[in-house]
Amino acid sequence: MANYAVGVDFGGTKVLASVVDVKSGKIAGSAKIRTSLFDSGDALMDRIYDVVDGALKDAGMKAKETQGIGVGIAGQVNAEKGLLIDTANLSRSVVDLPMASLLTKRYGVDAAIRNDVQIAAIGEHRFGAGKGIGDFICIFVGTGIGGAIVRNGELIPGAAGNAGEIGHTMLMADGRICGCGGRGHLEAYASRTAITKAILGDLRRGRKSIVTDLIDDLDPTAEHAAIRSGILKKAVQKKDKVVIEAVSDAGKYLGMGLSSVVNFVNPQRIILGGGVMESVDLLFEQAEYWTRREALPYAGEQVEIVRSKLGDFSGVVGAAVIAAGA
Amino acid sequence: MANYAVGVDFGGTKVLASVVDVKSGKIAGSAKIRTSLFDSGDALMDRIYDVVDGALKDAGMKAKETQGIGVGIAGQVNAEKGLLIDTANLSRSVVDLPMASLLTKRYGVDAAIRNDVQIAAIGEHRFGAGKGIGDFICIFVGTGIGGAIVRNGELIPGAAGNAGEIGHTMLMADGRICGCGGRGHLEAYASRTAITKAILGDLRRGRKSIVTDLIDDLDPTAEHAAIRSGILKKAVQKKDKVVIEAVSDAGKYLGMGLSSVVNFVNPQRIILGGGVMESVDLLFEQAEYWTRREALPYAGEQVEIVRSKLGDFSGVVGAAVIAAGA
Repeated sequence: MANYAVGVDFGGTKVLASVVDVKSGKIAGSAKIRTSLFDSGDALMDRIYDVVDGALKDAGMKAKETQGIGVGIAGQVNAEKGLLIDTANLSRSVVDLPMASLLTKRYGVDAAIRNDVQIAAIGEHRFGAGKGIGDFICIFVGTGIGGAIVRNGELIPGAAGNAGEIGHTMLMADGRICGCGGRGHLEAYASRTAITKAILGDLRRGRKSIVTDLIDDLDPTAEHAAIRSGILKKAVQKKDKVVIEAVSDAGKYLGMGLSSVVNFVNPQRIILGGGVMESVDLLFEQAEYWTRREALPYAGEQVEIVRSKLGDFSGVVGAAVIAAGA
Repeated sequence: MANYAVGVDFGGTKVLASVVDVKSGKIAGSAKIRTSLFDSGDALMDRIYDVVDGALKDAGMKAKETQGIGVGIAGQVNAEKGLLIDTANLSRSVVDLPMASLLTKRYGVDAAIRNDVQIAAIGEHRFGAGKGIGDFICIFVGTGIGGAIVRNGELIPGAAGNAGEIGHTMLMADGRICGCGGRGHLEAYASRTAITKAILGDLRRGRKSIVTDLIDDLDPTAEHAAIRSGILKKAVQKKDKVVIEAVSDAGKYLGMGLSSVVNFVNPQRIILGGGVMESVDLLFEQAEYWTRREALPYAGEQVEIVRSKLGDFSGVVGAAVIAAGA
């Protein structure tokens, strides 16, 4: 029993928790619920309690039988203090939430919190596409775009703890406003949110797309209308022009951003994951093409560009690994 | 005598060589000549022999009395083989030049070659603005823009040896053509070359600038017309509007590029150096302002932005340090 820990991955659309065997990376039980942009701190914690309880139940275990609970969350985190500082893509009202101590209080086990992408990178490094690779970068494309830098087998935290935030690197000076408030950031061009905005814009201008058939109550003018990755995948398969163009543009922009990473950090391998990257092959293909095309020749030929191996579970596996201090 | 080594810094406009005391960083003698874009491999080596001979003469020493010769050069380098692979901003015809073995053959001492920015970063780390700092980034703005990443006191080479190439990170997707052939790279917006092009463009469109008085034979339509850093400095001091605008734009773009670095690599300190950065205060001020403005709040407040301390000599000092294996 001492091999198990609970990992929680709190993303832009869902919270996933799993009880993970931290020696093998195997999943013993899981639970998943949706998230809401309008959560207060209490509501956000309740969501986490729900999925942790659910995962433990699914695994037939009690919290005390695990080595602890790890949480990865999309936002700025103070790992040392177990504090969620700020999160642009999730609840907008939550600041300085003492997540780790709240979890320890409720479950009586150790708890740790990290940036969601950093824990996903740890998962990939331990049991996935980064296994045995010393220098790599993980990029996860979903509601936002996150990244993490692993060097000599260790995650680079950065002076302020936010190294790897590739979503907030400049792609287009003075360009589109980003979720973080900045301008021209990669995330505003290549995330699922950006793809959604491009498609909804086309619909508002009267272009026809199969997404209006695939989504029952789609309102292209609603502020928080979202098109899920599964829908994008179906639309691409059905050769929907609007979606193919939006995804291709995002892939091109992503590749341009990745070429910066290749030129600046020059990693051995780039691991691409996240919801929309998992679902939509076209995005991966375009991103790879444009990365190699735009990078400096020597570095661009040499870099390995691969998909994440743990898929949806890289986050929970990594979170369990840090919870176990393994 | 055993403390001395020769450092050579081969840049876009000049080659500087110094005999350096590698225990103290002190300069015992120097020599400097201009470079030419039209050098063959032989001509390029002759230039290096000239300045090495000159620096040794100035120091009153013979090559055999030094621990070796180190060269930093703006281009892609294979440090292990002592090979200059390719250089976009210097001679366009030189590829795969076995620089280290040629130097050893002529002078009978060990020789080493590195990217010019990497050796400048080593100089700053050992004796300059990076002394005692574990995690920093050096950015040098001159004919081109180069950078180097130091982490835990060590220079990060990158998988293909070109980590730190911030000049070739994306600032403006599908933007200006860069010297490297890529599009939208920072170097095409914030280097001295970019500033020069902006000013010459203004002159061709009939705007008036004091630079036409400060440079005797300036031909705004000549392909390789260059405006040196000293001229830019004078023009800014004399409140020349054309130059102030061009430098301010470059500083803004540079800051936007640096904000990417702050968000992605999140260094403790950024050291800014290079010819035009040394000369023109306005460029530093604008770059610092825009870096902090565009970076993620927490990381942007926390990062230290300082000037290089060794100025023109960071390269030769670093080159001497690697030559001595010190």
